[in-house]
Amino acid sequence: MSLDWTKAFAPRALKLTASEIRELLKLINQPDIISFAGGIPDPALFPHAVLAETFHEILSNPETRGAALQYSVSEGYQPLREWLAQTYLPKVGIATHADNILITNGSQQGLEFLAKLFIGTGDRIIVTNPSYLGALQAFSLYEPTFVTVPVQGEGVDLAALETEMAKGAKFFYLTPDFGNPCGVTVPLDQRRAMLELAYRYGVPVIEDSAYDQLRYDGEPVPPLLALDNERVNQPRPLSEATAQGQVIYTGTFSKSIVPALRIGWVVAPQPVLQKLVLMKQASDLHTPTLNQMAMFKVADKIIFDHAAGIRSIYRDRRDAMLAAMKDFMPQGVTWTEPEGGMFVWVTLPEGLDAAELLAKAIPEIRVAFVPGAAFYPDRSGKNTIRLSFSVPPPERIREGIKRLGGLLTAAVEALKVKA
Amino acid sequence: MSLDWTKAFAPRALKLTASEIRELLKLINQPDIISFAGGIPDPALFPHAVLAETFHEILSNPETRGAALQYSVSEGYQPLREWLAQTYLPKVGIATHADNILITNGSQQGLEFLAKLFIGTGDRIIVTNPSYLGALQAFSLYEPTFVTVPVQGEGVDLAALETEMAKGAKFFYLTPDFGNPCGVTVPLDQRRAMLELAYRYGVPVIEDSAYDQLRYDGEPVPPLLALDNERVNQPRPLSEATAQGQVIYTGTFSKSIVPALRIGWVVAPQPVLQKLVLMKQASDLHTPTLNQMAMFKVADKIIFDHAAGIRSIYRDRRDAMLAAMKDFMPQGVTWTEPEGGMFVWVTLPEGLDAAELLAKAIPEIRVAFVPGAAFYPDRSGKNTIRLSFSVPPPERIREGIKRLGGLLTAAVEALKVKA
Repeated sequence: MSLDWTKAFAPRALKLTASEIRELLKLINQPDIISFAGGIPDPALFPHAVLAETFHEILSNPETRGAALQYSVSEGYQPLREWLAQTYLPKVGIATHADNILITNGSQQGLEFLAKLFIGTGDRIIVTNPSYLGALQAFSLYEPTFVTVPVQGEGVDLAALETEMAKGAKFFYLTPDFGNPCGVTVPLDQRRAMLELAYRYGVPVIEDSAYDQLRYDGEPVPPLLALDNERVNQPRPLSEATAQGQVIYTGTFSKSIVPALRIGWVVAPQPVLQKLVLMKQASDLHTPTLNQMAMFKVADKIIFDHAAGIRSIYRDRRDAMLAAMKDFMPQGVTWTEPEGGMFVWVTLPEGLDAAELLAKAIPEIRVAFVPGAAFYPDRSGKNTIRLSFSVPPPERIREGIKRLGGLLTAAVEALKVKA
Repeated sequence: MSLDWTKAFAPRALKLTASEIRELLKLINQPDIISFAGGIPDPALFPHAVLAETFHEILSNPETRGAALQYSVSEGYQPLREWLAQTYLPKVGIATHADNILITNGSQQGLEFLAKLFIGTGDRIIVTNPSYLGALQAFSLYEPTFVTVPVQGEGVDLAALETEMAKGAKFFYLTPDFGNPCGVTVPLDQRRAMLELAYRYGVPVIEDSAYDQLRYDGEPVPPLLALDNERVNQPRPLSEATAQGQVIYTGTFSKSIVPALRIGWVVAPQPVLQKLVLMKQASDLHTPTLNQMAMFKVADKIIFDHAAGIRSIYRDRRDAMLAAMKDFMPQGVTWTEPEGGMFVWVTLPEGLDAAELLAKAIPEIRVAFVPGAAFYPDRSGKNTIRLSFSVPPPERIREGIKRLGGLLTAAVEALKVKA
């Protein structure tokens, strides 16, 4: 009576599998759970008053409300594109032009468009191991061959990167600043070296800069796009759109203001951007105009002060987590000390399985985290854990890490007995 | 110094070309042009007050504003899904369940997801000739082989449909109710016959119902999904999600409330919907929560009354256009008389080229329209024109059609002289 849908679907659809993180998020809403699982901003820090006021202004003004609710161009709301090019991006050294920017539904949509633009079935793409899960999901849809280069405390393995770039690849994707999941910052000399490799082997670089406003200490390192700019585009902002450059950059307000308005952006050389605009048109016509107008006004008014405020709160939480890790983690467990972002990345002794530990942690100690294997395209990294410190207050973080330390201490002991 | 991007792109990217309509829309903003070009709702009819009030309520209430701005599930805002299943869709005879519904960024995103889900390179898909341009663009990205069946005043050519379905196809896409561009309503007996063919040959049907609230006269014809339901799903709404059925249905608030909040939906059997949810997650995580919450509240409060109000205004405009067509069009020009929607579809004598006429119409008579060829996958239909009556008031419509009638009369005369 029914179709066999599996036969009707395209091969790419068979690659679609549920995100373990998002499935998990549905299950841990109980208030007694201390969750280090979600990579989400703390909703208590949202700038509610200015958002409410801004939406009200736009929707009650006869001169703005019509445009806010009507079909619009696929490129994005022009004042927002101009503000990004002229005010926001120059602060991190990026020289660009409004016409090099596409507004997307969060940076996730930018990543999906780039996958759609570059990846033919079986094409090699290079990602770090581990990588942001959302990017892996977006890329997977287009059936690439994933090639990985390790990323650890010291950064990316450049020798591995050269080996893989030399073989050719559609792009190299990374989150160079305290990225999701592992919190590592790629040092400046490595960024320069990466770009040299990218130029030598003709591989585009996709730089995911979702956490750009969340640096808690240390000096900012210029984005790869800023370094790429030095080669070809001098003034900041540019006086006209550029066709030059080899780095494509994605950004978002999701971490610095709010996620659910879904406003992100892609910065790209003209030949890439023109294709992305057509893709946007075919995919959903345009990002909601009202959301773009509101986010432009709110960001222009508050973003730098607001970001300073949330940084001081997230910094305290990171510090609380790192202090508690020192006090409660058993020997043999190591972790990153991120300069920003939302994540501490934990490596357990070989032989421990984070997924098994999670299955015990939720019922026994009421603590949730994300097993790291999901972030490895090859599903290795079974002995890794992603801990997010963005939502619980410091004393809850300490309590959660204390409980987790107890669980891990017992697991490490049991492993020794077994060996 | 620069990459050769064309070589870097996937083959699908080479299919991306600018939409003639949307490029045109950018050029005709001058106030002295009478535009029949855009397929857009009249912004003067947007329910501004209730929208402003609703956004304010959500954003000033501490119990709702956090969730409105935080990451959310990919399926969509649950109360909206339930309202669609229990209140909105049963009114047109559709039996479904909240878990059979995905909320998308307008129905355009639903079409793009369905293309991504079904189309492998070279796969046959059946579309009407002409078809909604946005659908053709979304489908094109996945490099199908387009197979067309003619649609005209009497509906779809069923013999052609059978011939093509018998050869196999990933899906058959149509807009059965006064669709964009040609305004034709597919009669009930044809809908039943189409479904029988779809069952016989195992071809899924994608029913695009963007204009569902815009019927101006005549009896509503049940959607194909409602007829499909009769076979497998009886109660309305369903008490649990269904895996049965062969029709996938897309809808939107873009024509009935406002477009720029970008809220649409897909109704599909579970095996399809589960894949679409994963696709949504990989594509942009979720539709803006605030927009979904606001649209749910606004729709629940006003949609049926509001739609009745805009219907009476659009009906007057349609009537004004049809009356003017009778008065001013030369012999040899024919057009559809739509029962709803926004479009009158005009066929000129063979030998006239609507694109050439547009190039004269804008400077000479200050009237804009869309040449119909863009809606033909095979780029035939050069002698067709899409006229939208949704925005200008009746007297402007009459004036515009009068001017257009003059231009066409001269063109028809010139054609005769040439022959």
